Amino acid sequence: MSEYNTIDVAATQMLGKAKEIGFLSTFDRAKAQEPRCTFGNTGICCRICLAGPCRILPKKPGGNKGICGARDYTIVARNTVRYIAGGAAAHSDHGREIAETFLHVAEGKVKDYKITDADKLMRVAKHIGVETEGRDVMAIAKDVALLALQEFAEVDESKELTWIAKYSNETRNQKFRDTGIMPAGINLSLAKLLHQTHIGVDADPVNIIFGGLKAALSDVAGEHLATDLSDIMFGTGVPVVTEANLGAIKADKVNIALHGHNPLLSQMVVNAAKEMQEEAKAAGAKGINLVGICCTGNEVLMREGVPIATNYATQELAIMTGAMDAMVVDVQCIMPSIRTAAECYHTKIVTTMPIMKIPGSYHMAFDEMHAMDSAKEIIRLAIDAYKQRDAAKVCIPEIKNTVVAGFSMEAMYNIFRKINAENPMSVVIDAIAAGEIKGVAALIGCNNLKGTHDLNHTTMAQELAKNDVLLLATGCSAQAHALAGLMNGEAVKKYAGEGLKKFYARLNAAAGLTAELPLMFHMGSCVDNSRVQDFVTAMANEMGVDNADVPFVVSAPEAMSEKAVAIGAWNVAYGNPTHVGVIAPTVGSQLVNDVVTKIAEDVFGGYFFWEPDANKASAKIIDILDERNWKNAMRKKARDAREAN
Amino acid sequence: MSEYNTIDVAATQMLGKAKEIGFLSTFDRAKAQEPRCTFGNTGICCRICLAGPCRILPKKPGGNKGICGARDYTIVARNTVRYIAGGAAAHSDHGREIAETFLHVAEGKVKDYKITDADKLMRVAKHIGVETEGRDVMAIAKDVALLALQEFAEVDESKELTWIAKYSNETRNQKFRDTGIMPAGINLSLAKLLHQTHIGVDADPVNIIFGGLKAALSDVAGEHLATDLSDIMFGTGVPVVTEANLGAIKADKVNIALHGHNPLLSQMVVNAAKEMQEEAKAAGAKGINLVGICCTGNEVLMREGVPIATNYATQELAIMTGAMDAMVVDVQCIMPSIRTAAECYHTKIVTTMPIMKIPGSYHMAFDEMHAMDSAKEIIRLAIDAYKQRDAAKVCIPEIKNTVVAGFSMEAMYNIFRKINAENPMSVVIDAIAAGEIKGVAALIGCNNLKGTHDLNHTTMAQELAKNDVLLLATGCSAQAHALAGLMNGEAVKKYAGEGLKKFYARLNAAAGLTAELPLMFHMGSCVDNSRVQDFVTAMANEMGVDNADVPFVVSAPEAMSEKAVAIGAWNVAYGNPTHVGVIAPTVGSQLVNDVVTKIAEDVFGGYFFWEPDANKASAKIIDILDERNWKNAMRKKARDAREAN
Repeated sequence: MSEYNTIDVAATQMLGKAKEIGFLSTFDRAKAQEPRCTFGNTGICCRICLAGPCRILPKKPGGNKGICGARDYTIVARNTVRYIAGGAAAHSDHGREIAETFLHVAEGKVKDYKITDADKLMRVAKHIGVETEGRDVMAIAKDVALLALQEFAEVDESKELTWIAKYSNETRNQKFRDTGIMPAGINLSLAKLLHQTHIGVDADPVNIIFGGLKAALSDVAGEHLATDLSDIMFGTGVPVVTEANLGAIKADKVNIALHGHNPLLSQMVVNAAKEMQEEAKAAGAKGINLVGICCTGNEVLMREGVPIATNYATQELAIMTGAMDAMVVDVQCIMPSIRTAAECYHTKIVTTMPIMKIPGSYHMAFDEMHAMDSAKEIIRLAIDAYKQRDAAKVCIPEIKNTVVAGFSMEAMYNIFRKINAENPMSVVIDAIAAGEIKGVAALIGCNNLKGTHDLNHTTMAQELAKNDVLLLATGCSAQAHALAGLMNGEAVKKYAGEGLKKFYARLNAAAGLTAELPLMFHMGSCVDNSRVQDFVTAMANEMGVDNADVPFVVSAPEAMSEKAVAIGAWNVAYGNPTHVGVIAPTVGSQLVNDVVTKIAEDVFGGYFFWEPDANKASAKIIDILDERNWKNAMRKKARDAREAN
Repeated sequence: MSEYNTIDVAATQMLGKAKEIGFLSTFDRAKAQEPRCTFGNTGICCRICLAGPCRILPKKPGGNKGICGARDYTIVARNTVRYIAGGAAAHSDHGREIAETFLHVAEGKVKDYKITDADKLMRVAKHIGVETEGRDVMAIAKDVALLALQEFAEVDESKELTWIAKYSNETRNQKFRDTGIMPAGINLSLAKLLHQTHIGVDADPVNIIFGGLKAALSDVAGEHLATDLSDIMFGTGVPVVTEANLGAIKADKVNIALHGHNPLLSQMVVNAAKEMQEEAKAAGAKGINLVGICCTGNEVLMREGVPIATNYATQELAIMTGAMDAMVVDVQCIMPSIRTAAECYHTKIVTTMPIMKIPGSYHMAFDEMHAMDSAKEIIRLAIDAYKQRDAAKVCIPEIKNTVVAGFSMEAMYNIFRKINAENPMSVVIDAIAAGEIKGVAALIGCNNLKGTHDLNHTTMAQELAKNDVLLLATGCSAQAHALAGLMNGEAVKKYAGEGLKKFYARLNAAAGLTAELPLMFHMGSCVDNSRVQDFVTAMANEMGVDNADVPFVVSAPEAMSEKAVAIGAWNVAYGNPTHVGVIAPTVGSQLVNDVVTKIAEDVFGGYFFWEPDANKASAKIIDILDERNWKNAMRKKARDAREAN
């Protein structure tokens, strides 16, 4: 560990530089907030009306409740589900924007976007019940787009979200119906949840949590359709070899960081950059070098092999290299402080979306009608900035690692099919049955400087791999592994247990890729977590068991954003044990904490657990996988015995 | 003032009783929260992600920003607009439920609801562009219902909300378009605003505030259609004489309090009670006595003359009378502590809506298909409870005041028309021009025990009336006046200035009502604040000036709920100076505070001001009215001079 709160060597160098030039980074700001306010940190501070703030103060007469009489459990439950509302809104609004552009593609209204993966369009159309037989591709696309937009528009509470009902298996759908959490419309669920948590509406924590789960399922629908339509427009990820960490920034090129979450613009910048290398050369550079940060980075990594510069917590440090000419941002997880960091350098911060501006930065309004023009304009701004770059200030850590990524569900199935063409998922299930691997864990989510940057992500990856757990990854977690050199074949040799190594050997032999498969399969951005759930559902279907019996665990070792709360919540509803590596602000109410960590299991099979220690969390995950495998084996034994009689 | 924090004599008696029996009421709980947390109270505590809570701590290195780098202005702006989102969601979800039932009426699917005011249906249909000529009433109703539901469903950002575009005048609509705050869909605006305020999205406080205003306009659309469709289904208010305060609870009757906001159930209880008097008598009571609390109370007061028991802050005290047999609640502003209060008595707390439950209380799920059955079941529960009532515990303050209410826009126009049949609003405008009255003020909003219960409401009413300001009122403010005996003709004699008295004399002579007109015109519930804006828009149109030049001020002397923030925000966007009687949690950022209290005026003509002292606030309102009148006179003089040349 460095003197700074990160395991990343490049970040450590840059934090040293920040200290040198007196820039207070997020690492300093996180320290300044210590100790955290106990009320807020445990969820028992209520600011839902103007009469408060109210805090649970049991020692004062009347202080054991809020002014309105809300108990700790009501306050904690409301605060928790409002996180879900925020997260689901972010994901789904991203999805809605993709759907809107997709509709315009289908209607021939936009020139810079197209159908790239028509096969996926057909698969999605068939899956959601759009007629494909003998129809024009664009007509099919339009129907898919309209169904996608209807997910947001629906206000008839008797309906069901298509992307839930069609992509979950029937057992889970029935569970959602039985518990009253099957959503009708995405935006409707959000509005209703805000209403439910208004002052003087719901006081029942369990009812509030169910409202939250409905919004969380709306989240997954928004995520899933965002992924589907992005794949159709921009291509579905196939294995790519690239690199990660600040060393991917090139001293001799025009460097542009793509940061945020929405691929609509970043994909255009990738396309435009291909055409504009000469313009960069004319300015004296050796070309244009794109790098990614956060999930926009993951989007263009998965589809285009764009290298990863860094992840959430260290985004400011990409600017500290002095070689970042422009940082182009869209929405979500963008620290406003990148603007302050940029003031020390020539770096241009370019905001592009109407709902995301940073005072003092360039705002170049992105417009889908002129997407390529916007992208080119941004690149020209970066080239201009390059000319202002002060070579004396350039200091790029010589650290980067090979990354093998691009594992959409389809890409993984393509590999599995080479072993079992009929039942690709049986490749995983058979390996579990044989005891070769214990099961599957998905490492997902953010950075949170309540712990050490990337420590939990990478520790868990190593611990779980050592214990023969097959790893999937998305979001900033995936980037943590990439930055740390875990997302390649070397890491398998170094960290995988014997069983997992055998499994990999078989996969590698069949896959026939130029690079060996990595220690974890990078399935994409945070919005792509629906790919992970599709994977789990496919496992359940192949095993013939309920989702809640699949040897699968999801972990957000450094959860931070409201989106992470939404993702965690739907994982619980889907039956997945869900590890969170920070203590959640539910602990202020024993009741609510018990509901989400214990009682949830009785209802959904999934549940949360909070464990900031990555070693303990890994041990617990291994126990869970062992237990699920053991139970499945017992069930099989009982079934076999019954059948023998 | 009593030893307790209220001006209400009946409440004072009941607080004494609460003390006697050891019940800690909201008055005690408000004290327990003193002093409020400064960070939360000024808006500089951020809990929008799990990395914090962050507080602005300027003395610590790096502490002047949140961990993500959010400045005070970003944090304050985000917190503020999330209040708007909560409030707009509450109002509009109420509107959507009304619209859904209204659609079912039009489709003939529900038996217990009907078209009561077909004239209003025709007016609304014509206003929003539904063809009425030669069409069946139900067909028209269906088109109106579908347009109403489309307000919630719309996801095409190029559209405009019908209830905004059609009910605002063109100048204001253009202002909304120019500032980018004209909303397309209600739920869409809410989802987008949550997205905009997610971690790492908008850092620009002005942009965030504009997003908030878009949601606030969505709020007014939801409010307006809720009012319109409720009027059509249940009747548009006409002047009624009734009474208010705890003395309206009857020792010899089965008392049922209707509490909450949504008239769908409460109206049915009113209807059912008419049929069930005999059942109550069979149980030994002299009949059924309904009383209202909060806005459900206002709904049934306006349409049915149901007396007001009390308002928000004193809702628990209605139970302390020992004679409340059932308190039936729907949604919003219902203190969970009514359940605790009910434990001391025989009172049944009945929750009725799926998103509003209180642990330990009766939940009787309301179902529009069996609305009357539900209502009757509830009344039977109350009758049963009556039988358990302990006469020894009954202690009803002998305090009640005459109330004249029921002033829908239509009811007021009916009076004005008797003076000027052609241009009813000219009655008000001419009185202003003649200097008889200074203008109009609307007293609206909640209770907030940061001040003294009902002190600000009633002080402002008296001060403004004394200075010849015509008063409108809604919500808990209207109830405060009713409870205090200000909502009748006696109060005009006692408090109105000479000009206002003259104006009233003319109105009374023309109105020909059995009762004299009251000191303030009660226009309904909080959701009926759109009636107030219609009044202001009509004034602007009649005067031929911009909304922002109308001598009108709105005041929420004891604002508490998120709905109040939403209402305040759209009032500002509509050009109205907006007084708030508590210090808003915007003061933690000088910039945001200046934007909403000063710069807003440059853009919209409306602006907020915070003034907890009712006397100072009244003086300021009078200044504003004087200034607007003076400016209008100057403009007229200049125009006349120009025309004379």
